[in-house]
Amino acid sequence: MGEINPKKQTSGADGDNGQGKPASVRGEISRAVIRRLPRYFRYLGELKDEGVEKISSKELSVMMHVTASQIRQDLNHFGGFGQQGYGYNVANLYDEIGKILGIDRRHNLILIGAGNLGRALAGYVNFEKRGFFIRGIFDISEERIGGEIRGIHIMPMERMKKFIEEHNIDIAIIAIPKGAAVNAARVVVECGVKAIWNFSHVDLEVPEDVVVESVHLSESLMRLSYNIRFAENQDLQLPGGD
Amino acid sequence: MGEINPKKQTSGADGDNGQGKPASVRGEISRAVIRRLPRYFRYLGELKDEGVEKISSKELSVMMHVTASQIRQDLNHFGGFGQQGYGYNVANLYDEIGKILGIDRRHNLILIGAGNLGRALAGYVNFEKRGFFIRGIFDISEERIGGEIRGIHIMPMERMKKFIEEHNIDIAIIAIPKGAAVNAARVVVECGVKAIWNFSHVDLEVPEDVVVESVHLSESLMRLSYNIRFAENQDLQLPGGD
Repeated sequence: MGEINPKKQTSGADGDNGQGKPASVRGEISRAVIRRLPRYFRYLGELKDEGVEKISSKELSVMMHVTASQIRQDLNHFGGFGQQGYGYNVANLYDEIGKILGIDRRHNLILIGAGNLGRALAGYVNFEKRGFFIRGIFDISEERIGGEIRGIHIMPMERMKKFIEEHNIDIAIIAIPKGAAVNAARVVVECGVKAIWNFSHVDLEVPEDVVVESVHLSESLMRLSYNIRFAENQDLQLPGGD
Repeated sequence: MGEINPKKQTSGADGDNGQGKPASVRGEISRAVIRRLPRYFRYLGELKDEGVEKISSKELSVMMHVTASQIRQDLNHFGGFGQQGYGYNVANLYDEIGKILGIDRRHNLILIGAGNLGRALAGYVNFEKRGFFIRGIFDISEERIGGEIRGIHIMPMERMKKFIEEHNIDIAIIAIPKGAAVNAARVVVECGVKAIWNFSHVDLEVPEDVVVESVHLSESLMRLSYNIRFAENQDLQLPGGD
């Protein structure tokens, strides 16, 4: 469970969906650590922007509400970035984690679905800062086709195949209802796209060499609902809570 | 790690952010199982809609790409819903998991932020099927105020406090940039809201008795990016890949 698991379908909402693949090939970094890396990266990015040059695991611990020993343990996986009595060099650690996360290079994306969610995703300028560039948007709606979002053209689905080939697209964002999503995933995979960021409410079936990261919003909402119930039950069990 | 952890801030994107709270009060259901429940619920809902009455752990296993023993193990936590040689009663199991997830009751929500993401969230009719009703929408934009999304009014932020009290709001969705989000969270918590579904790119600091579920989209994108890199490195290490 704690091992990295070279399964291709991951999910921010499902968490561990236990596809029962063999344990890590590399083996040295646990999946839990990988899940935490983007959060370290975010905090370090903010510190860097504020001009902070070094930080101790203790200071980071207070900011992130994680124990200092957890931080040391996590960051030790990536070599000797920390020095006793000095702390971590913020810019170095930020860059190193960025490399591990694969955001030291450019990714070319297409967005499938120019509805509200698609518009929201296309609107995040921060993605570009991290090297993720949406090159084209595709939709089936006649009304939307021909329009643009932040200068990116909205094109008919029929143009997608050629566009992927011509623009060296490596990631497809799928933000359309689930029936159409399955079909769209099939097409982009046929065109050689190796990564899908999936917002549709379905687990996409893809070949072994394609990675899928799913954001299942309704599952996230159900986890919230579970936690509300759980918190209430705790209150019942704990003495004198208000 | 495997224990349920009564921490209040969970995150679809962070996964386990290790806030180091004490171990479970109830203790018998692991967090990993809880994370998987919404996915079981989704599959069972689809089966139910298709009129399927019973299903074996083996059949479910094939559909969900989880081992049958994992399924039996997970579902055993919730009592004897499965019968040897019969399988699970789909409708019963669906209802039971729904109760555990706390979606057997109605939740009254407000949405803070009527931008593209807010519009997308307000547009999901499926949330209502699960008992989550958005009662009011709040925004700072003069242009948006006075408008509506699917019949739900967009109101100025100043009206939020009174609205929460009058409409028995228990969940606030925060879909605004991070600076404003921190402030909005403070206000809703002051008004007694005990649950926040957070889409802003910040970890909200809330009192112990408030639960937060965060969807950090850029962290999800970074996990995808990590997995692309990881898959490529694997290809390098594996013999004879195409």
